[in-house]
Amino acid sequence: MTDTTTAPETDPVALTAALIRCPSVTPEEGGALVLLEELLTGAGFECHRADRGEVSNLFARWGAKGHARTFGFNGHTDVVPVGDPADWSVDPFGAVEKDGLLWGRGATDMKSGVAAFAAAAIDFVRDTPPDGAVILTITGDEEGPATHGTTAILDWMAANGEAMTDCLVGEPTCPERMGEMIKIGRRGSISAWFTAQGVQGHSAYPHRARNPLPAMARLMDRLASHRLDEGTEHFDPSTLAVVTIDTGNPATNVIPAKCRATVNIRFNDIHSGASLTEWMRAEADRVAAETGIEITMTTKLTGEAFLTPPGALSEMVSSAVAAETNVVPELSTTGGTSDARFIKDHCPVVEFGLVGQTMHQVDETVPVDQIRQLKRIYTRILREYFA
Amino acid sequence: MTDTTTAPETDPVALTAALIRCPSVTPEEGGALVLLEELLTGAGFECHRADRGEVSNLFARWGAKGHARTFGFNGHTDVVPVGDPADWSVDPFGAVEKDGLLWGRGATDMKSGVAAFAAAAIDFVRDTPPDGAVILTITGDEEGPATHGTTAILDWMAANGEAMTDCLVGEPTCPERMGEMIKIGRRGSISAWFTAQGVQGHSAYPHRARNPLPAMARLMDRLASHRLDEGTEHFDPSTLAVVTIDTGNPATNVIPAKCRATVNIRFNDIHSGASLTEWMRAEADRVAAETGIEITMTTKLTGEAFLTPPGALSEMVSSAVAAETNVVPELSTTGGTSDARFIKDHCPVVEFGLVGQTMHQVDETVPVDQIRQLKRIYTRILREYFA
Ligand SMILES: [Zn+2]
Ligand SMILES: [Zn+2]
Repeated sequence: MTDTTTAPETDPVALTAALIRCPSVTPEEGGALVLLEELLTGAGFECHRADRGEVSNLFARWGAKGHARTFGFNGHTDVVPVGDPADWSVDPFGAVEKDGLLWGRGATDMKSGVAAFAAAAIDFVRDTPPDGAVILTITGDEEGPATHGTTAILDWMAANGEAMTDCLVGEPTCPERMGEMIKIGRRGSISAWFTAQGVQGHSAYPHRARNPLPAMARLMDRLASHRLDEGTEHFDPSTLAVVTIDTGNPATNVIPAKCRATVNIRFNDIHSGASLTEWMRAEADRVAAETGIEITMTTKLTGEAFLTPPGALSEMVSSAVAAETNVVPELSTTGGTSDARFIKDHCPVVEFGLVGQTMHQVDETVPVDQIRQLKRIYTRILREYFA
Repeated sequence: MTDTTTAPETDPVALTAALIRCPSVTPEEGGALVLLEELLTGAGFECHRADRGEVSNLFARWGAKGHARTFGFNGHTDVVPVGDPADWSVDPFGAVEKDGLLWGRGATDMKSGVAAFAAAAIDFVRDTPPDGAVILTITGDEEGPATHGTTAILDWMAANGEAMTDCLVGEPTCPERMGEMIKIGRRGSISAWFTAQGVQGHSAYPHRARNPLPAMARLMDRLASHRLDEGTEHFDPSTLAVVTIDTGNPATNVIPAKCRATVNIRFNDIHSGASLTEWMRAEADRVAAETGIEITMTTKLTGEAFLTPPGALSEMVSSAVAAETNVVPELSTTGGTSDARFIKDHCPVVEFGLVGQTMHQVDETVPVDQIRQLKRIYTRILREYFA
């Protein structure tokens, strides 16, 4: 006989499937946040929409506002476009389950992560109400410009006296095997757009023209050849990628007036957006002085490098992961950017979630067992945090 | 009283205007060669059309076939497109004459040149029939691919036992002032198309990708920085122009798989198409070895460098120019390519014609006085040649 007095567990697989069926391609809400708001409200969470611009965002808290022990989760329900649906084996918004996998856009990144922490939080506060608070911050703009997403929730929280003591971002973090990686920081990212401006002319009379291409080629060779650093204690070496060089001149007898190039730097905590901007500007100036070609530069900083140094939070997450998966996770700072770059200014933040291999791809899938395992890991973290 | 027994002079200005009114944009014949064929036949020239492919070409000879003293003229009646006719002050095919200028596409390049040598030849053989022959070779494909143009006429001549002892190309040769430049050769021209092939990837994980852009940037910097030579007795230093570098990657988080670049070299008689191809291939191989990026290359040789060393022909043309203009022309090998590159394999060839400043431009014009002056210069050359 089962104990019929215990409330049924919230099924993170069914919740993931329900979220996949919401076509929430950035910036469309698609019904995903409405669904979560209803579910969480019904479970005793106080919910507020922190929408901004065309973006929908959800804030949900269980427990007392401003409690000194407030654990936060962060995630997003928006997904990247599906591309050509004909390339998919299944309806990308159908949430088909077969062979132990759940299929659909957002299956990995990260409707499963949101479903796992929502289900864990709902069951935890109901079954073992803690002396503290649990906050869920869920945005509809992580995959897009991210200017009105988690940032808007944090702004709303600050304006309304809400705060998290610690935060876990549920993004997929494991490269191949469940449990193998926690992110305790992220490299920074900055892009720079260069324009070399010369004077157009005829290939037969190069002395009457001023060709911007050799200058741009030299600058790109210099930037790409420079070793930025050797890495730091918690970070890999910084990397610079020349991502495009373009001229668009179809005529072999014409020297073009202009050439454009773009680089992207992923940098560790030795550098900052300002120091890298200064370095690139100096290199551009040096080439400009050598060649007589004017080179302009604009930059966009996506995020500074940051680190939540290994400590109580990462140890707690590590031991929960190890207990459920028998894998001791690596504390890493690799990979792209995430909304942790915004949260780190508010409280300690780490990231842990599923295996990200199929994210952003056609036929994105997630093993249903791993969604349940992730819920168990999140539950262990809550239990440990409020113990 | 005027001497009514002398036949009227052929007016090169009226003939230029009639040719401008033929819309002979490459490869359209446009009526221009038909007009010349009728005129020359009426003047006692034996005419043959040496058409090939979609191109029309005219061969005309006065005098005995195979004569040991056969002076040739070469020119073209095809013109480059007018672009947007709305950009012109006049109808580009209207041949408007005002302010001492004749306006229209081909006014300078080179319906005036053709008109001047045709008028000179017609009047010369009529008024002072020489012991020798005069050949006119006029093509409808100089501005286009030029594969079925002067080449086709020369092939037809070889097949039919026709030959020129010397040849004058009537292209515009003077940079600014009438009479200042004769071309006695041309630099060669070769273009090379490079493709650097890497492996696409994410900017955050450059070690999983292989970026072709730094390799291409380095190669272009190396090629552009290399000084090919210091010039030779009759030639300027060779020049290399990087004319385009293209990738077409709009995403700063993507490392592209491929990059393309094109260079064009204008080279003097130190080099050949083969030696330059070998040099560029070696430089590409060196960069490929340094970077591990595969770099492929294809080339197209437009023409080898050639020189008709200063001698009887150039001296004769120089003295005719000096006598009419009071300017002693420079013997030059500068500028782009011309059909002289084909003729130089058949006989000594030099080039002399008008001021080329407005060629290929909107509102192409030619001073009518200069057309008449050019006819007088060509007449002097014929007189001297057959003296
Ligand atoms: Zn994500
Ligand atoms: Zn021409």
